[in-house]
Amino acid sequence: MEGMSEIGLYGLAIMGQNFALNMAEHGFNVCVGNRSPSKVETTVARAKAEGITTLVGSTDAKDFVMKLSKPRKIVILVQAGKPVDATIETLSEHLEEGDIIIDGGNEWYPNTLRRSEELMAKGIQFIGMGISGGEEGARNGPSLMPGGPMAAYKEIEPIIMKCAAQVRDGACTGYVGPIGSGNYVKMVHNGVEYGDMQLIAEVYAVLKTIVGMSNDEMAKVFAKWDEGDLNSYLIEITAKILAKKDDKTGEGHVVDYILDKTGSKGTGRWTVQEAAEVSVAAPTLAAALDARYISSRKDERIAASKLLTGPKEIPSVSKSQIVEDLEAALYCAKVCSYAQGLSIIKAASDQKGWDIDLAQCAKMWKGGCIIRAELLDKIQGAFTGTPPVNLMVDPTFAKELNDRQLSWRRIITLCVASGVPCPSLSSSLSYFDSYRLAQLPANLTQAQRDFFGGHTYERIDAEGPHHTEWTDAHKAIGDISERTAGEN
Amino acid sequence: MEGMSEIGLYGLAIMGQNFALNMAEHGFNVCVGNRSPSKVETTVARAKAEGITTLVGSTDAKDFVMKLSKPRKIVILVQAGKPVDATIETLSEHLEEGDIIIDGGNEWYPNTLRRSEELMAKGIQFIGMGISGGEEGARNGPSLMPGGPMAAYKEIEPIIMKCAAQVRDGACTGYVGPIGSGNYVKMVHNGVEYGDMQLIAEVYAVLKTIVGMSNDEMAKVFAKWDEGDLNSYLIEITAKILAKKDDKTGEGHVVDYILDKTGSKGTGRWTVQEAAEVSVAAPTLAAALDARYISSRKDERIAASKLLTGPKEIPSVSKSQIVEDLEAALYCAKVCSYAQGLSIIKAASDQKGWDIDLAQCAKMWKGGCIIRAELLDKIQGAFTGTPPVNLMVDPTFAKELNDRQLSWRRIITLCVASGVPCPSLSSSLSYFDSYRLAQLPANLTQAQRDFFGGHTYERIDAEGPHHTEWTDAHKAIGDISERTAGEN
Repeated sequence: MEGMSEIGLYGLAIMGQNFALNMAEHGFNVCVGNRSPSKVETTVARAKAEGITTLVGSTDAKDFVMKLSKPRKIVILVQAGKPVDATIETLSEHLEEGDIIIDGGNEWYPNTLRRSEELMAKGIQFIGMGISGGEEGARNGPSLMPGGPMAAYKEIEPIIMKCAAQVRDGACTGYVGPIGSGNYVKMVHNGVEYGDMQLIAEVYAVLKTIVGMSNDEMAKVFAKWDEGDLNSYLIEITAKILAKKDDKTGEGHVVDYILDKTGSKGTGRWTVQEAAEVSVAAPTLAAALDARYISSRKDERIAASKLLTGPKEIPSVSKSQIVEDLEAALYCAKVCSYAQGLSIIKAASDQKGWDIDLAQCAKMWKGGCIIRAELLDKIQGAFTGTPPVNLMVDPTFAKELNDRQLSWRRIITLCVASGVPCPSLSSSLSYFDSYRLAQLPANLTQAQRDFFGGHTYERIDAEGPHHTEWTDAHKAIGDISERTAGEN
Repeated sequence: MEGMSEIGLYGLAIMGQNFALNMAEHGFNVCVGNRSPSKVETTVARAKAEGITTLVGSTDAKDFVMKLSKPRKIVILVQAGKPVDATIETLSEHLEEGDIIIDGGNEWYPNTLRRSEELMAKGIQFIGMGISGGEEGARNGPSLMPGGPMAAYKEIEPIIMKCAAQVRDGACTGYVGPIGSGNYVKMVHNGVEYGDMQLIAEVYAVLKTIVGMSNDEMAKVFAKWDEGDLNSYLIEITAKILAKKDDKTGEGHVVDYILDKTGSKGTGRWTVQEAAEVSVAAPTLAAALDARYISSRKDERIAASKLLTGPKEIPSVSKSQIVEDLEAALYCAKVCSYAQGLSIIKAASDQKGWDIDLAQCAKMWKGGCIIRAELLDKIQGAFTGTPPVNLMVDPTFAKELNDRQLSWRRIITLCVASGVPCPSLSSSLSYFDSYRLAQLPANLTQAQRDFFGGHTYERIDAEGPHHTEWTDAHKAIGDISERTAGEN
């Protein structure tokens, strides 16, 4: 119908404004709406200023909905949680059967499942679509991770294929899977992002504290790494950040004025909790979350620094060797971090029957989003065809890890001896070393569990559960099948 | 009333049978019940065989309830989850206002909160009481962690004070706090238990793989440690386990026949998830959980062992030095592990207004339970009076950690160089090193978050949130307050 918009965007914080402009710039007729009218005006004015003619706004929910052609497609970009429910309530009042709501927020996936059921009862289709790329990505091409009914996805596909980031082999989007899966993949993306950021922070600490490099020197190191295997958005911006002078004081670098207290917004925590839920080890991501928690206890740390001491002397080191080792260590740990993230998605996908394609995840992450990296091209390749059970055992990655591990081990040894914490680098190595051993000391753990809780154990030389009469207390009673109500 | 029982116990798996006998042996008149009648007979027969005259049984739920004096007090010991709901439903039908149900299972605390509300509507009081000690503890004196209404607690106090494990300064029980808190403390107890067990497993791997000790030699090492600062139930049974010959084959030690695949039952996972939930770093416990998950992927590990390699040579080492260092490393890591567990309880207690006394937790754990240890006496002392904000900064523990850290660092260096995974030992050190530093590299993380998400940061030289114009993309729009809908 003439004058009708093909897609609506509701929720005009920065991400929403930018994503609306992105869609409109690609020639789609967009109508924007927001709870408070002023942002509608701002967005319309921004479109006008940029010469974009395909964006209109509406300050009334009903009018906003009525401006959309059917089946209506509305992307909502409001804060996760209650605001999403409120927005859905406001909009769905005016929607009809067959219309589609796409939630673009960082939503906890069970909320998406609940909303989907509620909306389905009204015949409204629901898509949970993770969006990554920050403000800039939203404007210029984000990574889009939609999960929901295929029919609904098909309706938005032409739009998101154009508006997503474009890489050599296409758009950084595609069908993730059933409802909830898009949020899940975005959640894990963010967990991996926590890992990447913490690994970089640890490397920065080594360069600064142990090597004693200046910010400008470090900026050069990161810029150089960005030209190699570590090429990625986060390495690139780290170089820029380290080079950035302080605007406020006009003296020194801004990074040295920033307080070392890190915030977090949920998705990293969820990823760690979900890893535990689906029985997947994710120590690199967990260490990154813990690092944020410990960093935020700045007052406690200041007090502790007066009571707890570190090593008296830092070992003497070759600067060039450390820089070389750090590059290798960072790469290896990053591979472990991605291995963990993808294992979480795989486990969840298997448990929930989502049938998520990990090569597709890697492809979606190759552009637009915060974790975009050269590495993802290789990961996509590894999972195309017959996927490895774990990224680390893909032949290419296995060789890289094998070849680079001595550097990795040297860095951790250096950190341990120097008292510089490297929780993510070292828990990545523990992950590698645990996973590559056919024999772990878990036999002792099983023996303990059988000793105190009668849990039984498996034997290497016979089938079925076994129990040892460790002490007389265990002779008293009970057959093996009863031995399961105990603990741990 | 003559012939009436003072307390009921429903659910006669091994834990239930043993705890019933424990109470009856202490002179309390106990009535036992169970869904399937045969176990009632078994329990009654066991009591008779042991010369216990204060235990009766009933195979009918109504009759079971009617045999109890008012207010009725029933401990239920069935599997956590649905069986608890079913049991409560069966029993509560016959209960009256003022009666008390005590759930002794390893229950997820939100379930306890829900049941409490449901029962409160009927005037029935509910207590969630964590029980630790396995079969043997249940029989001879467990650690009992009850949380619920004080008035209900007072009704059972005389019984549990007698039946709990007894240590020098009293019974290993006491009022934990409001409903849910008892389960929570027991959950964390189990999480700490995971940590303790994994730390021991790592030490065992070093002794076995790097030092090359025999099981009998290792048994002696653990037995000796059990006489020192590491004195604890788990060290004691480890010595016994390592010394135990294999009954089945009559050849060698049983520990060598046990498959290295570890199971788990929920509480360890919950602890790790809860730590994340309440923003507390618990890397030692998380590494222990991850180790169980990785161990259970035995087939994957076997396949990976053919593709991923470790260091070619193990550094040569002094056996006596390693044994000495291991004792110190294990002690330090254990302190970190307990620091984490207690921090989780503290954070939850603060957030939920439970007012849990950490000294009391330590006291409850001193006897009866799986993690009972000499160390807990010192921990109780540390938290008596003005509690430290973290166990590590209590002056006694701070000195011990400071003094022993070189041994700890040497062990981790050795493991890293040898390719022997030590995830819990090393993440404990990362925890120590992160917590004791006034300055962490989190300033870089904050800079990145501001760069890609406009999250703002705090400065060391000025109040309030700040934002840097890192790139032109950020100049476009938005004041600081709007910059919070983004990611990570």
